[in-house]
Amino acid sequence: MDVRAAVAFEAGKPLEVTTVQLEGPREGEVLVEIKATGICHTDAFTLSGSDPEGLFPAILGHEGAGVVVEVGAGVTTLKPGDHVIPLYTPECRQCDYCLSRKTNLCQKIRITQGRGQMPDGTSRFSYKGKPVLHYMGTSTFANYTVVPEIALAKIRTDAPFDKVCYIGCGVTTGIGAVINTAKATAGCNAVVFGLGGIGLNVIQGLQLVGANMIVGVDLNDDKEAWGRQFGMTHFVNPKKVSGDIVAHLVELTKGGADYSFDCTGNTTVMRQALECAHKGWGESVIIGVAGAGQEISTRPFQLVTGRVWRGTAFGGARGRTDVPKIVDWYMDGKIQIDPMITHVLPLEQINDAFDLMHHGKSIRAVVTF
Amino acid sequence: MDVRAAVAFEAGKPLEVTTVQLEGPREGEVLVEIKATGICHTDAFTLSGSDPEGLFPAILGHEGAGVVVEVGAGVTTLKPGDHVIPLYTPECRQCDYCLSRKTNLCQKIRITQGRGQMPDGTSRFSYKGKPVLHYMGTSTFANYTVVPEIALAKIRTDAPFDKVCYIGCGVTTGIGAVINTAKATAGCNAVVFGLGGIGLNVIQGLQLVGANMIVGVDLNDDKEAWGRQFGMTHFVNPKKVSGDIVAHLVELTKGGADYSFDCTGNTTVMRQALECAHKGWGESVIIGVAGAGQEISTRPFQLVTGRVWRGTAFGGARGRTDVPKIVDWYMDGKIQIDPMITHVLPLEQINDAFDLMHHGKSIRAVVTF
Repeated sequence: MDVRAAVAFEAGKPLEVTTVQLEGPREGEVLVEIKATGICHTDAFTLSGSDPEGLFPAILGHEGAGVVVEVGAGVTTLKPGDHVIPLYTPECRQCDYCLSRKTNLCQKIRITQGRGQMPDGTSRFSYKGKPVLHYMGTSTFANYTVVPEIALAKIRTDAPFDKVCYIGCGVTTGIGAVINTAKATAGCNAVVFGLGGIGLNVIQGLQLVGANMIVGVDLNDDKEAWGRQFGMTHFVNPKKVSGDIVAHLVELTKGGADYSFDCTGNTTVMRQALECAHKGWGESVIIGVAGAGQEISTRPFQLVTGRVWRGTAFGGARGRTDVPKIVDWYMDGKIQIDPMITHVLPLEQINDAFDLMHHGKSIRAVVTF
Repeated sequence: MDVRAAVAFEAGKPLEVTTVQLEGPREGEVLVEIKATGICHTDAFTLSGSDPEGLFPAILGHEGAGVVVEVGAGVTTLKPGDHVIPLYTPECRQCDYCLSRKTNLCQKIRITQGRGQMPDGTSRFSYKGKPVLHYMGTSTFANYTVVPEIALAKIRTDAPFDKVCYIGCGVTTGIGAVINTAKATAGCNAVVFGLGGIGLNVIQGLQLVGANMIVGVDLNDDKEAWGRQFGMTHFVNPKKVSGDIVAHLVELTKGGADYSFDCTGNTTVMRQALECAHKGWGESVIIGVAGAGQEISTRPFQLVTGRVWRGTAFGGARGRTDVPKIVDWYMDGKIQIDPMITHVLPLEQINDAFDLMHHGKSIRAVVTF
């Protein structure tokens, strides 16, 4: 079938909105009509060519929501008409990782997903007779896409696509980092570095669990109002702190953060996040993605005296199990999404959505089909 | 009173066994007759002058066992005749750290202890009328010492001093790292780097909790027999591995260690320990003390994909609560200590005990009085 897609033909070039061909779903696969998709820094990182694992030509996009159109052989948990969110972290519930009860990093289709292929090693997309690769197992920058059954979360049908698509990445990553990875608890003091979309979702996750002090750190004063909207209690602009930012944050939090979160991808900030954690028990969670080859460092004494260094991917969430719950939380008013969707654009303007993100003008831009 | 002590008059010089003066216990303090003391790398680190926080002259030693002789005013939990192990990590059960339920790092007397003083800011030891400093709040290289009540664990009276003194540091650090810090569980696969005294105690801690695979890593093949004596199931000498040691260990453990432990103090090894941990959930615990100013590094991707980096001090054990239990475990035959005490020497030969350690000839040398 013909589908409209924004194709990344090569690194460093804008996406090209055109018509590509899509095969129907094979065994264990599902054809989904994508209704909306968010634009995320990860898409931009790959498109820029900085991602050493980026492959082209490909159809990017990993933050979508849509409706099941057709299911392939053997698909038992979804049927046409179901509303779904595609998952770049699948949940097969059968592999050693899913069964470990300790991680959300299902490995069932990792290798083919990393190659831009469906689990059988081929692509469903083509352009002028040549294969076009999938991306993160989702490829939501197309009005129809094929996704493995294990990489689709079934959600309630009254949830608006142009809002809950954001749960496919940013919302779940931020809130999940708080509840699944840090397991932050009521009364805790927390520090959040970087008040972009992820940082704001970390903040609302902290508010959700009843945190006491929620300190936001950003170089841009404009972010203060954004942070406060989601529950931030204190704002620190490191440019306006005389002396060491870590010492400042330790003093502000009366001994250090019970939990700290890096949402910047900057390895220097990751170190600050660890070192502002409370002696004895403070845990620091890396969410941001660092540039290729960059490393984090600290003195081992920081860990020996009780700090813990962690990271998180997709907020530690099991997509099929947890994403529907987060959709419910949104629909029940427990968390906010609407104010974060600052721009909604048609597919034809998808490159404008990237520009808005690069220039810091959007928290989240969403493309609708 | 006159006491016999091995005094560290200055950095880099051997200890001098001589007679010093000791005042009786003040309020909240206890006079202890030390019956035996282990010699630990930490003593040697301070004596060498490499420890930037080392102070002289001082009476070193932090791995002792003895008998209460006299208690100061206000002491309610100990009486003359009680058998005790001095604790370099006290347990006041009143400070924010003790009450956090998350750490063993009681801060009640940290500042004075760091200065080589009793909690009132003075020393009980003197030599020719001038103060001699305490060390780690314990100063067990003397046949009598004064220790705060909150820094003494009361133990059963049938436990042999020249064995259970080792519980004052090495045994508790190793076993505690497994049970308190890593919280390792039955069936886990573990990798232990460095098969000195701490490493062997980590191994027997892993055996205690029912670990499946216990891999020991050491550059010295002689350590293999030692490791196996305490439950090690596999031995790896990195010098005999062609290629990357991390990849080798990941393959050996079928995906990586559920728990890994650095018992070397070498920051390169600390990185290897983290990176051989299992994707998704492997936790690595730093036990070894690195040289001043040295740093650990890794790619943040290691954490984002689920590995956790921790450290431990005194094995995460609360001294007054946990040390008596470990003494019981030893007396009940649940753990071994006797084979690790390879040398017992009189105080006059304490410098020989340091030499045995430096030359790798002892697992643990103990001095008796």
